Amino acid sequence: MHVILPDGKQLDLPQGATALDAARAIGPRLAQDALAATVGGELTDLMTPLPDGAQISLITKKNPGDAAPLFRHSLGHALSQAVGEFYRARGYPAEAVKRGVGPAIDNGFYQDFDLPEPLKEEDLPEIEALMRDIIGRGLDIQRQDVGKAAALAQFGYDPYKVELISALPDDEPVTFYTQGDYVDLCRGPHFPNTGRLPTSFKLMSTSGAYWRGNEKNPILQRVYGVAFATQKELDGYLHALEEAKRRDHRKLGRELELFTIDPLVGKGLPLWLPNGTVLREELTAFLKEQQFRRGYQGVITPNIGNLDLYRTSGHYPYYSESQFNPIEVDEEQYMLKPMNCPHHVRIYGSKPRSYRDLPVRLAEFGTVYRYEQSGELNGLTRVRGFTQDDAHIFCRPDQLKKEFLDVLDLTVLVLGTFGMTDVRFRVGVREPGSDKYVGDEANWTLAEQQIIEAVEEVGLPYTVEPGDAAFYGPKLDFVVKDVLGREWQLGTIQVDYNLPERFDISYVGEDGQDHRPVMIHRAPFGSVERFTGILIEHYGGDFPLWLAPRQVMVIPIADRHNAYAEALREELHAAGLRAEVDDSSNRMQAKVRTAELGKIPVMLIVGDQEQEARQVSVRERGSEGHRERKGVAFDDLKAELLERYKSRA
Amino acid sequence: MHVILPDGKQLDLPQGATALDAARAIGPRLAQDALAATVGGELTDLMTPLPDGAQISLITKKNPGDAAPLFRHSLGHALSQAVGEFYRARGYPAEAVKRGVGPAIDNGFYQDFDLPEPLKEEDLPEIEALMRDIIGRGLDIQRQDVGKAAALAQFGYDPYKVELISALPDDEPVTFYTQGDYVDLCRGPHFPNTGRLPTSFKLMSTSGAYWRGNEKNPILQRVYGVAFATQKELDGYLHALEEAKRRDHRKLGRELELFTIDPLVGKGLPLWLPNGTVLREELTAFLKEQQFRRGYQGVITPNIGNLDLYRTSGHYPYYSESQFNPIEVDEEQYMLKPMNCPHHVRIYGSKPRSYRDLPVRLAEFGTVYRYEQSGELNGLTRVRGFTQDDAHIFCRPDQLKKEFLDVLDLTVLVLGTFGMTDVRFRVGVREPGSDKYVGDEANWTLAEQQIIEAVEEVGLPYTVEPGDAAFYGPKLDFVVKDVLGREWQLGTIQVDYNLPERFDISYVGEDGQDHRPVMIHRAPFGSVERFTGILIEHYGGDFPLWLAPRQVMVIPIADRHNAYAEALREELHAAGLRAEVDDSSNRMQAKVRTAELGKIPVMLIVGDQEQEARQVSVRERGSEGHRERKGVAFDDLKAELLERYKSRA
Repeated sequence: MHVILPDGKQLDLPQGATALDAARAIGPRLAQDALAATVGGELTDLMTPLPDGAQISLITKKNPGDAAPLFRHSLGHALSQAVGEFYRARGYPAEAVKRGVGPAIDNGFYQDFDLPEPLKEEDLPEIEALMRDIIGRGLDIQRQDVGKAAALAQFGYDPYKVELISALPDDEPVTFYTQGDYVDLCRGPHFPNTGRLPTSFKLMSTSGAYWRGNEKNPILQRVYGVAFATQKELDGYLHALEEAKRRDHRKLGRELELFTIDPLVGKGLPLWLPNGTVLREELTAFLKEQQFRRGYQGVITPNIGNLDLYRTSGHYPYYSESQFNPIEVDEEQYMLKPMNCPHHVRIYGSKPRSYRDLPVRLAEFGTVYRYEQSGELNGLTRVRGFTQDDAHIFCRPDQLKKEFLDVLDLTVLVLGTFGMTDVRFRVGVREPGSDKYVGDEANWTLAEQQIIEAVEEVGLPYTVEPGDAAFYGPKLDFVVKDVLGREWQLGTIQVDYNLPERFDISYVGEDGQDHRPVMIHRAPFGSVERFTGILIEHYGGDFPLWLAPRQVMVIPIADRHNAYAEALREELHAAGLRAEVDDSSNRMQAKVRTAELGKIPVMLIVGDQEQEARQVSVRERGSEGHRERKGVAFDDLKAELLERYKSRA
Repeated sequence: MHVILPDGKQLDLPQGATALDAARAIGPRLAQDALAATVGGELTDLMTPLPDGAQISLITKKNPGDAAPLFRHSLGHALSQAVGEFYRARGYPAEAVKRGVGPAIDNGFYQDFDLPEPLKEEDLPEIEALMRDIIGRGLDIQRQDVGKAAALAQFGYDPYKVELISALPDDEPVTFYTQGDYVDLCRGPHFPNTGRLPTSFKLMSTSGAYWRGNEKNPILQRVYGVAFATQKELDGYLHALEEAKRRDHRKLGRELELFTIDPLVGKGLPLWLPNGTVLREELTAFLKEQQFRRGYQGVITPNIGNLDLYRTSGHYPYYSESQFNPIEVDEEQYMLKPMNCPHHVRIYGSKPRSYRDLPVRLAEFGTVYRYEQSGELNGLTRVRGFTQDDAHIFCRPDQLKKEFLDVLDLTVLVLGTFGMTDVRFRVGVREPGSDKYVGDEANWTLAEQQIIEAVEEVGLPYTVEPGDAAFYGPKLDFVVKDVLGREWQLGTIQVDYNLPERFDISYVGEDGQDHRPVMIHRAPFGSVERFTGILIEHYGGDFPLWLAPRQVMVIPIADRHNAYAEALREELHAAGLRAEVDDSSNRMQAKVRTAELGKIPVMLIVGDQEQEARQVSVRERGSEGHRERKGVAFDDLKAELLERYKSRA
């Protein structure tokens, strides 16, 4: 047999050879450095027999990150072995530790156990030390095929393994992986030797997990760890995790009094508190202003619609599992609207339109309701009622590219305003050869081409994903990175040939004939709730001045400065700034601390000197620490703050 | 027997004497001028026997308006007589015309008929002429009591009269009124002579009406007329009617593309079109700005709530006939919110409050849904979903007057901005001696006193209405007159002792103890939908600049001015003004007419001269006709328009 190497050369090998054999055939140094391989583009280990004629490539110590799923999986085995040794050291026989599954996952690994006594969180450092010891031992990891009967004999003491082995086909070999005295039933793939595993891992927690995820089964104990190719990556991840916890929008939402969820009002139905309402209204005003400039027209539609509307649109009954139940009214049925589009299509259709009137861009901050299982609900990011920054553009087919470009431009501008400049696009086009798509073939081709041209012009990274189009039109998703490096899929831009057809809307063309407009759905934020949740975490609650629910705290040093402080507050407030006075009996330093905790960006401290000269001392919070200015003329400062507020600096 | 005259004098009269007899006893001149009388304060006619000892007062030609219900009723008889003559002239026997009821109503009268062939609208002038002829004949109108059997004999041919007479008690006389050869079964009261009836009346229309309002009964033909004491009043009424028709918000809503109601979306659920949305958002922004100044805090709450929330508030099941049916979600029930108060009470209760934090003023433009019968729905003024400009103020009992004063001040300011300066208040207080009220007696007394003091301070007309308080607190309604002189009851200010109790909310007082806050519900517009409907009619669609959905139309005189016009439009638009260009191929005069029809307040006409000098010719619509200015520098005009827009001039 032979395999093909990355440089195109052919390497002859004996039947049943592995990637490790291939590495050895190339050179001993490579065999020593090799960690894993890709075979036909698929990541695999060095110990699995190669198929004849495969394209192979070796992953070495130089790029250990490319083999991350493998070392995570092998660290799972090291954990499993370590836990076995932990209990043997406590006098239990090896058979006392039984094992569920232990896969690699994003950023790490886990292993489920049925243990003679539960592991405690405080045992994890000892387990971790044992794992490092196992790595230090440099144990070869060996792959072995055995018969099903032998496998059952080996694991007879472990009901979970027995269940797994019994479910395998009778005529196929069962694969074991062995390292030192530890043997596990496993499909692989793995690293060739524990000595090559990275030590940049950390055990994070233990928790309960039902065997096979079924709540009728026994609960096993899951030990969960994270692992990266380098210590730097691990540190970065742990730091980001810490940051994410500190920035959790549910925690900050409570502390900064942005929103609350009240079971008596309902699950997944946030109540926006005064501070959160300010934030939301600033976001809304910002987008409305941009939309006004770009020729969008606002509309407002009810939160319910006759079921016939959704029958016409096709949303009912096809999506009814994510919708609330209908409401009987006289002889009719109504439904909480799950989306705004049918309402907007009816507005488009409420009067005759000419080709000269197009594009028509109807925008609404429309609150919609969708059913989610209560277990899925989460703060602002997963809710049952949310407001879309929705718009529907009705245009001629030849206007599609220009409209797409404008939407992309708006989206990039909007996200850039929040410092989210790391944006990429995913363009979903048809699956070649499939006939599941509605609408005219030529229009589809034109639309896909125009979207890709538009994306090209924007110049940001993008991928084209065949088969990712909806059945009713091609689409574009945008994915942004927040300040913690987490990726969020926000809104979608979606071409739609289906609704214009179903609602039979048209425009009169230059030729005097009726034509079908193309419809674009778009929402830069996606959901105002979810976007706010993301923003809270992105800023860690330290909002820029224009978004900060509480902008200015005036802090009188002593009681005798209260009146002056209040006069300043009134002036700022009359100018439209959100200003407060801390006239509590606390000392100045305590007042500053309170304002800091409230994440108020600007503090104006006023004492005798300031009062005499109509000045303030300014203390500002910022991403790079504090900035202090003394003796600033109040009128200048007010003008400066107003300018920063209005310009959304 | 005797009666008492207005001057307190006693007048002796024979038993069975009428007011006409009394008038004759006083003097022949009075008897000739008398039209009707009040007996014990009740309006009655001159032909009804007077009770012994009654206080009577005569109404004469000097004040015919005081007898309006009587002459309207008598004009109904004249109509009835005229219709009989109309059919006799066409060869039908008198018995061919059968009659339902014919009462006086607000502003006029009607009479129902069962006719041998239907009356047409174009027959009404002839009927009207016959009525004037009957007035000209000066027929005495006489009252007569007959036995039931005789009555049945007289009207045997008329199944409606037979039905009415049969339902009367057997032992009481049946009253007839007779004028010339026309006799009708009637309880009265009437004028003494057809010659004294005003000729300032008009027949308006005919329509179908079920006998006794029951749709299982035959349909009769109703002829409807209006009548006033003087021609001037009639003309004024007809003019107001014409104006109201011209200003009908449903008609203007369609013509100006403000809103539409689409049966596929649902009955009573307006869709706000782009122009209407602008109007609504201007109203909202205006009120939000005022509320920000006055220390209100915005909140946003979902459009649904758990049924338990409304069970706690008591809204369910007590008001369930005006609510939509609940929606089943998993094991819970949710309801479209019929009001925002329970949500706001929960927000108040979501954290501890101190006496220093009060008042807390939570404001929301909250969209609520209430069931109305489909026959009751009407444009924007009677809908099933509407947005309240709602706020709830939570304060200490001693803060009530100040809060009330501020709400009154806000309301008067807001209404005054729309030129609605004719405002009066109705203060609803307890019914003395009733025990149906919840809450502390001393608090009630204090609240009623504080409200009346506040209203006194405002200095506008008010009435105190005992028994008009809700069971949960005293209230204040405000009533405004629009430009047509029609009165509208807008929002309510309502003190509430009930919800704070039911939701058990509190604040910590200066004494360290828990106290119950007082709650005030208030909404200056009431419903944004209804208020917009009223505003459309109030302005007749001619909105002031700041409210006008379309503010400026730039009109190029010839095609060669299009580019200049577009440049101006862009500048105005970038400054935030709503500007358009009419670049159609129409002539300038036609463009002006189109802009007039669109009720666009400002037209900028641009030709060669304007283009050369960066000027415009300004043509403005206004309540006092047009205003034209030539050769205005564009930059000055832009600044002027912006200033007028921002100041809501």
